[in-house]
Formats: sequence, C-alpha cells, structure tokens
Amino acid sequence: MDVGFVGLGTMGRGMVRQLLAAGHRVTVWNRSPEPVRELVAEGAEAADGPAGVWRCRAVVSMLADDAAVESVLLDEKALASAAAALHVNMATVSPALARRAAELHARHGVAYVAAPVLGRGEVAAAGNLAILAAGPADALDRAAPLFEAMGRRTWRLGDRPEIANTAKICANFVLVSAVEAVAEATALGEASGLAAEDLLSVLTGTVFPGPVYEGYGAMIAERRYEPAGFRLDLGFKDVGLALDTAAAARVPMPLAGVLRDALLEGVAHGRGGQDLAALGETSRRRAALPREDAGAPGEGGAPDPDPRT
Amino acid sequence: MDVGFVGLGTMGRGMVRQLLAAGHRVTVWNRSPEPVRELVAEGAEAADGPAGVWRCRAVVSMLADDAAVESVLLDEKALASAAAALHVNMATVSPALARRAAELHARHGVAYVAAPVLGRGEVAAAGNLAILAAGPADALDRAAPLFEAMGRRTWRLGDRPEIANTAKICANFVLVSAVEAVAEATALGEASGLAAEDLLSVLTGTVFPGPVYEGYGAMIAERRYEPAGFRLDLGFKDVGLALDTAAAARVPMPLAGVLRDALLEGVAHGRGGQDLAALGETSRRRAALPREDAGAPGEGGAPDPDPRT
Amino acid sequence: MDVGFVGLGTMGRGMVRQLLAAGHRVTVWNRSPEPVRELVAEGAEAADGPAGVWRCRAVVSMLADDAAVESVLLDEKALASAAAALHVNMATVSPALARRAAELHARHGVAYVAAPVLGRGEVAAAGNLAILAAGPADALDRAAPLFEAMGRRTWRLGDRPEIANTAKICANFVLVSAVEAVAEATALGEASGLAAEDLLSVLTGTVFPGPVYEGYGAMIAERRYEPAGFRLDLGFKDVGLALDTAAAARVPMPLAGVLRDALLEGVAHGRGGQDLAALGETSRRRAALPREDAGAPGEGGAPDPDPRT
Amino acid sequence: MDVGFVGLGTMGRGMVRQLLAAGHRVTVWNRSPEPVRELVAEGAEAADGPAGVWRCRAVVSMLADDAAVESVLLDEKALASAAAALHVNMATVSPALARRAAELHARHGVAYVAAPVLGRGEVAAAGNLAILAAGPADALDRAAPLFEAMGRRTWRLGDRPEIANTAKICANFVLVSAVEAVAEATALGEASGLAAEDLLSVLTGTVFPGPVYEGYGAMIAERRYEPAGFRLDLGFKDVGLALDTAAAARVPMPLAGVLRDALLEGVAHGRGGQDLAALGETSRRRAALPREDAGAPGEGGAPDPDPRT
Repeated sequence: MDVGFVGLGTMGRGMVRQLLAAGHRVTVWNRSPEPVRELVAEGAEAADGPAGVWRCRAVVSMLADDAAVESVLLDEKALASAAAALHVNMATVSPALARRAAELHARHGVAYVAAPVLGRGEVAAAGNLAILAAGPADALDRAAPLFEAMGRRTWRLGDRPEIANTAKICANFVLVSAVEAVAEATALGEASGLAAEDLLSVLTGTVFPGPVYEGYGAMIAERRYEPAGFRLDLGFKDVGLALDTAAAARVPMPLAGVLRDALLEGVAHGRGGQDLAALGETSRRRAALPREDAGAPGEGGAPDPDPRT
Repeated sequence: MDVGFVGLGTMGRGMVRQLLAAGHRVTVWNRSPEPVRELVAEGAEAADGPAGVWRCRAVVSMLADDAAVESVLLDEKALASAAAALHVNMATVSPALARRAAELHARHGVAYVAAPVLGRGEVAAAGNLAILAAGPADALDRAAPLFEAMGRRTWRLGDRPEIANTAKICANFVLVSAVEAVAEATALGEASGLAAEDLLSVLTGTVFPGPVYEGYGAMIAERRYEPAGFRLDLGFKDVGLALDTAAAARVPMPLAGVLRDALLEGVAHGRGGQDLAALGETSRRRAALPREDAGAPGEGGAPDPDPRT
Repeated sequence: MDVGFVGLGTMGRGMVRQLLAAGHRVTVWNRSPEPVRELVAEGAEAADGPAGVWRCRAVVSMLADDAAVESVLLDEKALASAAAALHVNMATVSPALARRAAELHARHGVAYVAAPVLGRGEVAAAGNLAILAAGPADALDRAAPLFEAMGRRTWRLGDRPEIANTAKICANFVLVSAVEAVAEATALGEASGLAAEDLLSVLTGTVFPGPVYEGYGAMIAERRYEPAGFRLDLGFKDVGLALDTAAAARVPMPLAGVLRDALLEGVAHGRGGQDLAALGETSRRRAALPREDAGAPGEGGAPDPDPRT
Repeated sequence: MDVGFVGLGTMGRGMVRQLLAAGHRVTVWNRSPEPVRELVAEGAEAADGPAGVWRCRAVVSMLADDAAVESVLLDEKALASAAAALHVNMATVSPALARRAAELHARHGVAYVAAPVLGRGEVAAAGNLAILAAGPADALDRAAPLFEAMGRRTWRLGDRPEIANTAKICANFVLVSAVEAVAEATALGEASGLAAEDLLSVLTGTVFPGPVYEGYGAMIAERRYEPAGFRLDLGFKDVGLALDTAAAARVPMPLAGVLRDALLEGVAHGRGGQDLAALGETSRRRAALPREDAGAPGEGGAPDPDPRT
C-alpha cells in the first residue's frame, strides 16, 4: 500500500521498517530531520511536510501525545485537500481527542481508526506489537495489512475509535497497579527481613507469571531503574489520562488516585526520567528504608541510587 | 513418618490424603468429628484429642486463623508433654503469632516451622500446593518429605518462621491488588462502552497471562461470584493482616488501604461469602452502573446479582 | 470610580449593588440580558458588549470558570484598545490561567489583579466577602476602594496574581475535607447507634466551632441537601483544580484524591446539583445504610432522598 | 462523694485536684507511687492497691489504653467483692472494650459508665473538660456531681456506654482530618510560593475559626512540633481505633486510611513523639520540599527539624 507515516520516534522507526519489509511504499515525515534521512536510506521516501503525507492513500501516525496530534494532524485545511481516505492513529491519546478527531475526519471524508499499541521499542522493531484497533469496519479491513506488518495480533474493538484508546488506558492502569503492588510488598518485605529476590521468586513462581511481575519485579528487587523501558513520568501521564477519562465517565477509581500520588512523589524526587519501577523508591522513602534496626542484616549499607539526594 | 494432623477443612483433608498416599502414617484430629470419620475410612487414625496428636513424631496443622491456632495449639501443658519434636503450621496466620509460637515451642524443645501455602482446595487435593517455608534449617530438612507429599514446590525462606507468613501475606496483597485493578478498569470500560470480555481478552492476551487475571477476570466480566474460590471476607481478613504487619514494621501501604475499603464495602453489601471477584460490584455501585445512558446498548437490562438489594 | 463589571450571576449582582451603594459608577455587561436590565433599573449603565466595559477606568469580572474567562476577557484586540488600566478578576480560576492572563495584560499595559472571594450569594449581597487579592502593589492600592465596597476584609498576598488563586483553592480543599470527615464520622455513628445530631453537638460544642462544621454538619445530620449553597459538582471542579495545581507543583495530596472519588460518586448517583453536604450519602451508600440490624432503632424506615434510585 | 480514682497521669492528677476542690473524698491508686504521694500531700488518701479503690462508693479511672484497663480493672475477683456500685471509665478506649466491660460489671452489680473527655492536661487542671458520657440513666445521674467538678460541659449520649467511646473516636478522627488537610494545603502553598502564615491567616480569618485550625495550623506554619500537645503516635493509635470500630460496623472510611498512612510515615521517620502537627513534614517530604527552585525566595535555606535525618 502507498502509506504516509508521521512520527519517527523509537516506536515509529521500528514500525516503518516493518512496513517497508512487508513491501509497502512508505512516505515519512518528522519534526526533526535525522530519522527521515535514516529511513530514506533504508527505502522510505521523504515528504516535504505533513501535507505531503496526506497525499498517500493511507496515513499512519505515532506522535507523543494529545498536543502533538492536535498541532500536527488535526488541520482542517490539510484534511480538506487530503487524497488519503484513511488515517490510523496509533498513539496513546485520550478518548476525548479520538472522538473529536473522528468527527473532524468524517466531515472531510477521511476514515479515522484508533490503533494504540502495547509493546516497547524492541517489540515494535520486531513487528510484534499488540494492536488495539477500533473504527469503521471497512476502514479496519483496509488497515489490516498494515497491522499485519507491524503487530503479532490485532484486537478489533468495534466501530467507535475512542474505545481502543480506552482499552489502552485500562491496560496501562492495570500495569501500573501491578508495579505499585510489588513496590509496596517489597518494602514490607525489606522492613520485615524478607529478601526482595525471595518475594519475587515466590510471586513469579506461583500465580504471577508474565513479563510485568518478572520484569518490573526484578528491577524493584535490584533497585535498578535505568535505562527506562517505560518512563515514570509517562506512567504519571497515563494514570492522569485514566483519571480524566474516568471523571468524564463518572467512574471513581481509588486505586488510580493512589498510583497518581506515588508517581507524583517520584517525579518530585527527580525520578521522572527513570523507569516506572522507581515506584519502589517511593515506598522505601515513606517507610524510611533502609533502617539501621531492620530485620535483614546489612541493609543499612545499601547504596541509594536517588538521583536527587 | 508418624504424623499428627490438626484441622480437617477442605484444604486439610486434601493434604492428609496426599500424606497417606505418600505412605506416611497420619493421626488426625478435628473439632467436628465428620472429617475424622471420613479420613479414618481412608486409612488415617483418629486421635482422642489434640494431646493425641502431640504424641506423634511431627505435627502438621492447618487451622483457620490466629484465634484457632491460639486456642487449639498454643497450649503450654500439651507442649510440655509432647513427644513431637516438630510442628509445621501451614495456616495463614500473622507474623506476630508466628513469632510468639516459635518462642513458646522453643521453650519446650519443639521446633516450629511456618509453611503457609498458595493454592485452593483442588490444588491441595492434587498435591500441587506452593509451600512457603521458614524455620530452623534442620527442622526444614525433617519436614521436606511432608512438603514433597503435599506440594509441587517449596520455597525455603530462612530460619525465622514469621518470614514465611510475611511472604504469604505479601502474595495475597498482590493478588487482591490485581483483582481490584481489573474491577476498576472493567467499570471504566463498561461506562465507556468497552465490553468486559474485550478488555479481558486484551489484558490476558498481552502482558497479563496467568490464573489471576484469567480466572478472576472472567468472573468479573461475567459477574459470576459463586461458588467462591477465595471468599471476599477472607480477602478482607488477609488485607487486614497486611496492614497490621505493615503497621508493626512501620511501612505505609496506601494500596492496601484502598483494598480494605473496597472489600469492606462488599462485606457491608452482603457479599462477604461471595468470591473476591465481587470487588467488581463495588466498582460498579460507586459508578452507578448499569446506566440507562451508558455507551454499550442493553446494559441497563443486565440482571443484578446483588444478594442484598 | 468609573468601573466596568462583567459577569452578573448571583455573586456578581450582589457585588455590583455594593459598588453602586458606595458611590461608584458601574457599567455592566452579561451574556444574558436580564441581569443587565435589573441593574440598570438600580442605577448601573449598560455596555453594548465586553468592549464597552473596557472603556471604563477599571474592569471587575466575576465569571464562572477558566473557559468563560478565556472566551470573554482574554481577547488581545480588546486589551490592545482598552482604556482601562486595571482588571480585577474575582472568579475562582486556575493559577495557570492567572499566570497566562497576567502576562497577556502586561503586554498591553493593563495591570492584572486576582481577587477570588470566600462567601456565598447572601454574603456578597451584604458586602461581607472575604477577598484574597494579589497583584502589583500599586494595582492593589487602586483596587482597594472597590474591595472596601464589596468585602469585609481583604488579604494582600503579594505581587503574583496566581498566589491568590492558589490560596482560594487551598481554602476550598480544606473545606471539602472537613465536610467529608463529618460525612464519614456520621456514617460510622449511624452504623454504631450514635445519633447524628449528638455527634454534631459534640463536634461544634467542643473544638469545631464555625460555619463549616455547623452548617454542613446540620445538613448531613438532617440529610437535607437542597437548596444547594455550594453545589457538589462545583466542589468536584474545585478539588480538580487543587489536584491539577498540585500536579504542576509536584505536591502529592492523597486527601484530595479521596475527596475526588467521593464527589465523583455523588455526581454518578445524580447528586451533582445538590449541596456538597450530599457527601453524607456517599458514605451511607458505601456502608449500606440504613440497615435493618443497625444499632439505633427505627433507622431502617428513614426516607431515602436519593434523587436517582 | 467517697470516690476511688485509678490512673494518675497528667490528666488524672488534674481531675483528682478538681474533685478534691469540689469537696469529694478521693482515694487514689497508681502503678508508680510518686503521683500518689503528691496527691496525698494535697488531701487525697492512698489505697494499698486497686482493691482499696473498689471499697469506695464510686470508682473513676483514667488509664492509658485498652490493655491498661484490661489488666488493672477488668478483674472478676475485685468486681465480685466491690463495695462500689459505680465505675466511671474516662479513658479513650475501644467501643468493643466498653461493651465487654459493661457486661462484666453488670454481672457483678456494678454500673458501668463510659465518659471519655476532650481536652488536654491544662484543660483537665482547670476543670474545663468536655465530657462525653453514656451508661444507665441513674448511673449518669449519680456521676453528675463528679462530672460537674471535672468538666465544663457534659453530653449525655444514651444508655449504651460504647456510644460515648464511639463519639470520642469520631471527634479525634475529625480532628486528625483537619490537621492533615492543613498539612497538605500548606505544602501546596509552599511549593507554589504562598507563605504558610498567609494561608493560615486566610483560613482562620474566614470560615475556620477555633483552636484546631489556629493551634495546629500555627505549629505547621512554623514547623514547630515540640512540645507535643497531642502526640503523633497517639493520633496513629486513635485513627487505628476508628478503623477497627469502622470494620466492626462495616463502614468504609477512606479518609481514615489516608490519615493512617500519613501518620505511620511520620512514625517511621522518627516523629512519633512529636506533635500531630508533624504531619506537615510528611507532606513536605513527599513533595521533596524545600526546593531550590521553589517559588518563594529563601525557602531552600529553612532549617529542617527532622529528628532522624
């Protein structure tokens, strides 16, 4: 297919490579030019601006957040003269923005599909993303070959695009909840003399298999928060999206409120750029760990990786 | 081995059967006589009272809670005249009780091992329990053949018995957190028009494999809370144990506070005897679901399985 | 002084009357025309539009929220041609908006003063408002005669306008906290057999004098939520302002998170238009009150004023 | 009246002096002998033990907590041979203990009155306590002259003693909530550039008069936590009583959960012996205050009175 692609961050670059590998013709645009040059060397074509992208048959976008989507793509003039009949927005944005975008696109005869993904940079590079897609049925059909190139599995979640964004927000909320639970349990363990690696072995060896408990659990146990796979400040942003969506839907989410405070405490202490697993340090700070009188010997001497203090 | 066994609930009966199958000689006692008769018919011997059990070489106990253990087994006189040199307490009790019990046993020359388990009745019946064990190393060695008969894997967590209880409490806290997260996310989905089964499919098909998200998730999605695999009021008890342990260890656990309130609201609304998954109803009630104006069609007509209203 | 006034809601009308009574010449504008006619009959003059108001020496505004201020008053063209050298914004808006507004005004040589107030309609009508003012010192001096006409006391909170908005947000947060505390305590009392009026008498007769505990306390005790002095959904908005301000300032506020959930539950159950005191019903619903088995006799028969069920 | 008095802490001594001043004959007992000597010098008589106190016509007690009351006064043998027909327990104990005590006393023909108080040492010394009393009506009548001597006002809360304890617990819960709200608002102010004394002036000068906001507010604003009028760790105990009472009554109290965590964090950081106002430091720590980049100049140099770090 003749595809335009906007947003060449780590995720976007991996996705473009998979589209090229699957034989699609990809015209790319990005605010900064380096990633464009890089991908042109690998077979992509360069657009002279967002308008160039809208000349393709379909547009795929992977921008950072609501504000970026709004400024780059929700442009009445570009949409009015677009050749593209389909826009697949794969970023994690708010359901409210998705609703607004779908209306705007519809007025100009462009089908809007929301298709946020689960998976980090290396997953995108391997074409193994989990894709949560929603939009008009025929638009989803047309987007299917693109999804096949970029992901390992696609969920079709109906014809209202914002539902896909809601699903993504729910998944991230469940993820941050799991990490916070491990963080609190690990602090309780440390204060009581239960070694973090023992607790982790018990959890993952019994009823909590899978990458979340294993991956974040290991980082918490080792107090290793860099490099950041999922940045703590982006977790704060996502929990904020969950709370805003819940407010609009009138759904109290007390767990999300607790996550918000724990993440914000991490940001206040200079850990926003670290991995989400740095929630472990919020729990430890609140409990005044390490302690000289703690159960496990030697804890008092543990190095403190706090970037601020 | 010549083993005494106290506490023949669903869990206890399954465990005794596995001990018998492994060739151990088991003398049983229980407050109510029926389970004793049942197991005697299968090869166990009946003790005339707790004292009879203490005449065996080792005692295993699986009672309901701190109070039951205290009244049945923490008996100076029985301990003083015990032939048993080993007591393996497999119940979920507080670390504080474990500490007290270990001291009391030590004064009478009986080794005390804490070995709480993860797994429900059918897991016990199949000899597949996950066993979290702590106590003096030689006592753990002596208990090993018993663990082999009852479980699929044993974690040795050091020589302080209460550490095993702490690990069990941590695991249950992480479990209830996961169920509450799914409950809140499902309510957000329902209010927004995202079907519960779609959300569940996304979660378990991506980064949340395993029995917790799959099992409780399905019950929440189907609003099916009976029969109770893990009773909601026992979840309330366990979260209370976590909070008490955390208070003693001076570890704030805000997530546990939220779980406590959600569970207590379930108990107040008559759901204490239902499965933990009934947390889903607390989230729905707070959000005033189902709603006539909700996104997904037909929700307003869903039957309400609330036992109280 | 020659004053323009924008925003003639209940509060605004009372304030204009006080300005007139103090001898100021007041030119008014409002989106809907009735309040304008009403005040013209009492001595005010009518502006033909917001531009007419900017022709006065000073402008006072009392609009509903950030959005209204933004659309009516943050108008580059109007500011560029304004005769007014001073704008006193007395609405409860976000510190972020105040900061933006101050910059915009400064670019056009208009001094911006933030002066949100504490007090409801009848307090405004009596000229007894508490005024929290911040802005350039000379602008505060010039505004002083206006404040004197409208309020009983003015706090000068420095030269950064947004600080006055922060103070107002803090005060409302402390207020909602107090109401929620009384709501929860009253539910505990009711479930235990302690009459609400007895609890209220104890609180206000000992260390909690003042209008908050007395006023809201009485409404909670009597389960009387109408007419609304302070609407529950506006309380939700104000707690949201607190949380947004706190996020920007990186200050975790766990109490605010709890208030948010309790208010949102009230909104979900159709109580957004009732008084803030309807927080009492959220606490009662969670506790499944009234109960047939409750301590105090006769509670089961209490009428439920829930507008939804 | 011929009165026995048990428990001569700061509160108890002040109360005995007021009883003596009112002309009552008081026989005192205390675990440590110094306060006994002190009061004998002022006109009291010394009992040789708790039994000696039970020989008086009425017994008043003011012990520290449930455990002290249980061990000193809930003594079947002493009650069986008591001459006293009335016991007035003025300590802050749990409703559960009050219920148990009332039954035990009734079995031995002694009337049990619960009469916890509001007021600190200097208030007791001045005879100005607020007394919350419940018990059989005739017992309350008989106790009236004693209350008159010790307090400025008595609330009669019915014939179930535990209701008085519930009222006391509710009052303390509302108090701690108010202090936490001021603590969080003050941190938000500090991070935003609003001076703590300005915020306090606004609060107490508008709708929050009274000793709680004024007294604790000033301590928070000045970061002065000693001497402790109301110790933070006793606040933690009282919030725990509220949560336990609420669990038994099946009443979720999310605000109490937040208070619990904030107080426990204070205890973990070595502030248990400071005043409740040290909640201010929990809020500041979470927000990483003071900050070099904070709005108000000079904050970075504020001395940190943290006893631990």
